[in-house]
Amino acid sequence: MAIPDFYLDAEYWKKIDSLCTKRVSVSKDDPKMKEQLKDADCVLVNPFGFVMDKSIIDMAPHLKFIDVLATAYGKVDTVHAKKKGITVSNIPGYSTESVAEFVFGILLEHLREIERAKQQGRKGPYSEVGYQATEIKGKIFGVFGTGRIGLRVAELANAFGADTRYYSRQRKKELEKLGIKYEEPDALLEKCDIISLHFALAKETENFLNSERIKKLKKSVIVINLAPVEFVDYDALEERLKKGELTYVFDHSDEMPEPVIKRLSKYKNFIAYPPIAYISKEARIAKQEIFIENIKGFLKGAPTNKVN
Amino acid sequence: MAIPDFYLDAEYWKKIDSLCTKRVSVSKDDPKMKEQLKDADCVLVNPFGFVMDKSIIDMAPHLKFIDVLATAYGKVDTVHAKKKGITVSNIPGYSTESVAEFVFGILLEHLREIERAKQQGRKGPYSEVGYQATEIKGKIFGVFGTGRIGLRVAELANAFGADTRYYSRQRKKELEKLGIKYEEPDALLEKCDIISLHFALAKETENFLNSERIKKLKKSVIVINLAPVEFVDYDALEERLKKGELTYVFDHSDEMPEPVIKRLSKYKNFIAYPPIAYISKEARIAKQEIFIENIKGFLKGAPTNKVN
Repeated sequence: MAIPDFYLDAEYWKKIDSLCTKRVSVSKDDPKMKEQLKDADCVLVNPFGFVMDKSIIDMAPHLKFIDVLATAYGKVDTVHAKKKGITVSNIPGYSTESVAEFVFGILLEHLREIERAKQQGRKGPYSEVGYQATEIKGKIFGVFGTGRIGLRVAELANAFGADTRYYSRQRKKELEKLGIKYEEPDALLEKCDIISLHFALAKETENFLNSERIKKLKKSVIVINLAPVEFVDYDALEERLKKGELTYVFDHSDEMPEPVIKRLSKYKNFIAYPPIAYISKEARIAKQEIFIENIKGFLKGAPTNKVN
Repeated sequence: MAIPDFYLDAEYWKKIDSLCTKRVSVSKDDPKMKEQLKDADCVLVNPFGFVMDKSIIDMAPHLKFIDVLATAYGKVDTVHAKKKGITVSNIPGYSTESVAEFVFGILLEHLREIERAKQQGRKGPYSEVGYQATEIKGKIFGVFGTGRIGLRVAELANAFGADTRYYSRQRKKELEKLGIKYEEPDALLEKCDIISLHFALAKETENFLNSERIKKLKKSVIVINLAPVEFVDYDALEERLKKGELTYVFDHSDEMPEPVIKRLSKYKNFIAYPPIAYISKEARIAKQEIFIENIKGFLKGAPTNKVN
C-alpha cells in the first residue's frame, strides 16, 4: 500500500496498518516515487496535494485499487485506471450537513450583520440603532444544482419558510414533494432574492454565471457560491458590485486568480471566506470512516463508492 | 388620541391620523402630561420608553383603549385598566421569525467561527488551517419555553436534524407530532449540547438558570438566551465560563447590570449581542400593521389582541 502524503487521525492510520502488510509514504515530485510505487497494490490519494495522472498510475504495475480521500476525484485519471482494471473509490456525502449548515451561517451573518453586532457587543453600546435586517422567510430562494449538498440546502431553505425553487440537470421528486418547484435556469435566476450554487464541475455548467445572466439578476440579490468558482464572469460581477446591487458570498480556495480576488475585495458586498464550509468534526470522522470502509470493501471483493 | 413619544413609519402616522380626530404627543415626565391626557380616549404606548402605571392611567378620565407597540405589556397596569373598563391590546408574534432566525445566525456564528473567518477572508490567507467546527445535526437541542418563538426555534432545530426536545409549562402537541419530546426541566438541562431559552418573564421561571442548574450543565454546552436576563445566576455562570466549560450567547438590552456584563465580558465564550434579534424589515412592517389593526378593531367594537 502506498500513500501520497496526507493527514489522518492516528486511530485511522492504525486501522490502515491493520489492513495492509506494508505502508509506504509517497511525496509529490519525489524522484524516488517510481521505486516507492513498484510493489504497491493500493494507493490512497489526497487529491488536494496530489495529481494521480497516467504517468504515476503507470509507475505502479501491481496497482489494483485507488482510494481517494475526497468527494472530488477529478485529479485521478479514472479512465486510464479503468483500462488497467484498477478500481477507484471516493468519499461521497461526508460533508453534506457541514456545507449546508455553513450556507445558512454565512447567509444569516449577512442578513443580520452578525460580525458587526458581535464586535459591538464586546464593548457596547448595547443598542439596536442602525441595524437593518431581512428574514429568510418569504424570500425567493433558488438552489442551482441539487446533488446531496444542494438538496439539503433546498430542504433547509424550505424549513426556514423561504419560497424555495431549484434547477438541476435531473428533476428531484423528493424536493417537489415538499413543494419546492423546478424551474429553468434563466427564468429562475432572474427572480431570486437568494441564490445558492451547488453545481459540480462539469462542461454544461462551465461559466454558468456568465455576463448576460449576471446582468439580469435582481437588485439586492445575495449569491452564495460554495462550489468551484469557474462559473462566474468576474467583470460582469464587478459591474454590479460597484453599484451595490448584489452581494457575492463564497469560500475561496485556490481556484480564483489572486489579482481578481484583490480587485473585488474592495467591495463591501464581495465576501470571501476561507474554504471551511466542509470542515466539521462530524464530517472529518465520517470522511475517515468511509475511507477505511472503501479499503475493506475492496479487499472483500465488494468495492464501495466505486467511481470508474 | 394621545401618544407617548415613539417612532412609526410616516405611512402609519397617516393611518393613525385617518382614524382619530386629534392626535397629541406625550413625553415621559412632562409636567403638562395631565393636561395633554385629559381628553384622550385612546393612548398608544411604546413600553420601552414609557411606564403606563395607575397614576398616568388616572390622568385620562375618558380613556377607553390602550394600544401597546410591543409584545410585552408588563409596563402597563392592565389590572387597573381593566377595573376602569379600559381595553389593553398588544402585538403578539410579529418578531417570531426574526428572533428564531437570529438564534440560528448566532449559533452558527459560534459553531463555525464565522466572525473570524470573515475577517480572515478580507485579507487572506485563504486557508482552512486552524478551523474546527461542529454541526447542529445530531446535537441534543433543548428549547425552554415554547411560546411562538420557542416553538419556531424547536421546529427549525428539528429541521437541522438536531435531537430536539422541549420544556414548557404547557405541552405542545404540534411539537410532539414532529418527534420533539417533552422533558422535565432538570432532566433536560443536564443532557443538552445546545440550550435556547424562550421563557416570558414570570414568577415560575424567575432565576430559572440558578446556581445548582448551571453547575449541572454538560461540559461544552452552548446556552443561547434571547429572553429577559433575570433567569441567570451570574456567579455560577462565571465559575463555568472561567473553566471554559460553557458558552453563553445573548442579546443585551438594559436588564443586565453594567458591572456584571463588564466582569463577564473578559471571557471569550461570553458573547453579548446588541438587542437586534427582533429587528427585521418584515417584523417592523408586521408590528405596525397589527398596531393599526388593533385600533381599527377597538373602534369597530371588536378588539383584537386584547390582554386584559
